[in-house]
Amino acid sequence: MAGAIEFVDGGTVTTPRGFSAGATFAGLKTFAEDKLDLGLILSEAPCTAAGVYTTNAIRSACVTVTQEHVNQGQMRGLVVNAGIANTCVGDQGYKDAQEMAVLAGKRLGVQPNEIVVCSTGVIGVELPMALIRNGIEVIELAADGGSALARAMMTTDTRPKEVAVTFEVDGHQASIGGVAKGSGMIHPNMATMLSFVTTDLEVEKEFLQQTLREVADISYNMCTIDGDSSTNDIVVVLANGLAGNDPVSAGSPGADIFKEALMEACIHLSREIARDGEGATRLIIVEVAGAASIQDARIAARTVASSNLVKSAVYGADPNWGRVLMALGRSGARVEESKVDLFVNGVCIMQSGLPIPFHRDAVVALMRGAEVTFRLQLNLGEGEATAWGCDLTEEYVIINSAYTT
Amino acid sequence: MAGAIEFVDGGTVTTPRGFSAGATFAGLKTFAEDKLDLGLILSEAPCTAAGVYTTNAIRSACVTVTQEHVNQGQMRGLVVNAGIANTCVGDQGYKDAQEMAVLAGKRLGVQPNEIVVCSTGVIGVELPMALIRNGIEVIELAADGGSALARAMMTTDTRPKEVAVTFEVDGHQASIGGVAKGSGMIHPNMATMLSFVTTDLEVEKEFLQQTLREVADISYNMCTIDGDSSTNDIVVVLANGLAGNDPVSAGSPGADIFKEALMEACIHLSREIARDGEGATRLIIVEVAGAASIQDARIAARTVASSNLVKSAVYGADPNWGRVLMALGRSGARVEESKVDLFVNGVCIMQSGLPIPFHRDAVVALMRGAEVTFRLQLNLGEGEATAWGCDLTEEYVIINSAYTT
Repeated sequence: MAGAIEFVDGGTVTTPRGFSAGATFAGLKTFAEDKLDLGLILSEAPCTAAGVYTTNAIRSACVTVTQEHVNQGQMRGLVVNAGIANTCVGDQGYKDAQEMAVLAGKRLGVQPNEIVVCSTGVIGVELPMALIRNGIEVIELAADGGSALARAMMTTDTRPKEVAVTFEVDGHQASIGGVAKGSGMIHPNMATMLSFVTTDLEVEKEFLQQTLREVADISYNMCTIDGDSSTNDIVVVLANGLAGNDPVSAGSPGADIFKEALMEACIHLSREIARDGEGATRLIIVEVAGAASIQDARIAARTVASSNLVKSAVYGADPNWGRVLMALGRSGARVEESKVDLFVNGVCIMQSGLPIPFHRDAVVALMRGAEVTFRLQLNLGEGEATAWGCDLTEEYVIINSAYTT
Repeated sequence: MAGAIEFVDGGTVTTPRGFSAGATFAGLKTFAEDKLDLGLILSEAPCTAAGVYTTNAIRSACVTVTQEHVNQGQMRGLVVNAGIANTCVGDQGYKDAQEMAVLAGKRLGVQPNEIVVCSTGVIGVELPMALIRNGIEVIELAADGGSALARAMMTTDTRPKEVAVTFEVDGHQASIGGVAKGSGMIHPNMATMLSFVTTDLEVEKEFLQQTLREVADISYNMCTIDGDSSTNDIVVVLANGLAGNDPVSAGSPGADIFKEALMEACIHLSREIARDGEGATRLIIVEVAGAASIQDARIAARTVASSNLVKSAVYGADPNWGRVLMALGRSGARVEESKVDLFVNGVCIMQSGLPIPFHRDAVVALMRGAEVTFRLQLNLGEGEATAWGCDLTEEYVIINSAYTT
């Protein structure tokens, strides 16, 4: 079935039919080289929408407003700014998020409650609404505007994250496009990032929500950069139905391939987020197999991928596997030391809980690549999971010790 | 009551009556400047003992052996090595830990099962028992040997951690002495370090165990450096009764002051561990008050103190309080944003959930000191807790990206 899903070269959030986007520099972002900081997405047809949101008890007003809108009806558009998070600013934050919806709705010719509102950036600063008012006015939307939007979402990201896949449902060609931002404050507890996914498929709302939740659990929620989870996380999917298919719902033709395609797209974005972690030089992939349960596999994979000691060792290309075992042991997953096998980039360096002799220089050389995969076989059951993270470098510390200054 | 407890200048684990200690360089430690790496403690009288141990599912054989010994009877001595953890080495680890007890018992003239056995260092390497055999032979014990022992426990620690306090129980002058090591792999989930505490007080065993557990929860378990918890953590208390008092037990005269004195000693050691975190330049103190429960206060304090983003901001002396709120929000503690007050070194910078204007340069100057205190008043209840951590620096990354190389 995977053969039926193809990645689209240069694909992005505007790849599916009927979506356009655009961005501008409104003057909110002072810290990045790429100065786009305000963007819009428009769907020419109303979209069935689903969302997953931060679980942080401190949350941005934009999360509240978006959740209200998505729960209540169909969506037509989206507005996003980077630079200022609109968080911890009291009632003014809610007023400003609502005004962003009004301004975007007016610019796009749709109702304010048909708008998804997202902000990301520094906490505790009010949005300079005058800049946003001016900025929204001048944004030009284009059918290939997805990449500009992807850049406008970036904060400490060094590159935009975009993806699109195509597949067929019941004779109708469909596609899914997506963008994401996230570089710090990334840890699984919901999405911990912004990601916008579009599709021209017609999808029934409840199924869309359910599928997004399941997919988020094995993509965005398995992505960890620094263990901190943000106040502003939103993942939304917008499905405008222009592919002309009968609505996809639970058990319908197309349900499986849609879920698989969404998973491919979201996993791609999640890996790209991890790879672009603040200061990162390497992508860390932690695969856990043979766990007593899926929950055990998930917590074990995430704990290893988020261990500062493991991350530092990967940065140094140091096959210090004791730290992987330490992190596994403290994860809370059931572990029997004498049953654990560990592979580093395919090379078994521990079997049945005992180190096996390996050629150290060879493993160091392997770890010098762009991706380091730790595979832990627990030999206790059938639970499997994969987590993505990145190495911890001096650069991470430098970036984060002087972010607001 | 606190006035009745006095810190002893230069006090250490051999300050209480009847304890002697010593250390040598056996050749186990290759990475530290201070080359002592093997130490012994002897009590001239049998000790009532209590311990708390790592909760990591991967644990060193020394933890197993010590737990067996402490559970089964009175202790007379202790052997500790740094450099090699005796962890993840299969059955050989257990044999070696047992042999260490035999060797130490022989050297000290007591039974092997009267010995506490501790190791710390690199995981996955067998103990070079020939070196340990030779080393134990040559250790000379002295009544002022506690400081040598404290140095012999160090791995990436930059300085030994020692303390002693004196107090009076029912007319008997008593003291508590202690040493600790720990610099990385430090996170609350039990002790995540080695710490040995001695007292010349006579203490009933069950009360000693119960008191140690309570004290560990508000001292060692509130100390976090990097979120990773070790496979080798042990805290033991040895009480040899030479003060001549009637046994201290629950509700007896001396129960309160003993607990308070133990707490003072253990909190002192915990703060010193946090201050000496790998690469650290500043001690971070997170005080949470007004939480809905003590559990909430504990988790909130620990989460803020262990946030990489908070730690990086402290390193940069950056009053980026949004990160403190973010970490508070994701901690799982109940939080109502509009009720939260935040103080940085006594200066209120957020009140009722809203930033209040502060003189940025003044706060930056405050944060340049050796200690940074965040006080979070949640205004929801009576729960209070304090956690200790340290800043995250480039040096942490450097230390941990090349530890085994």
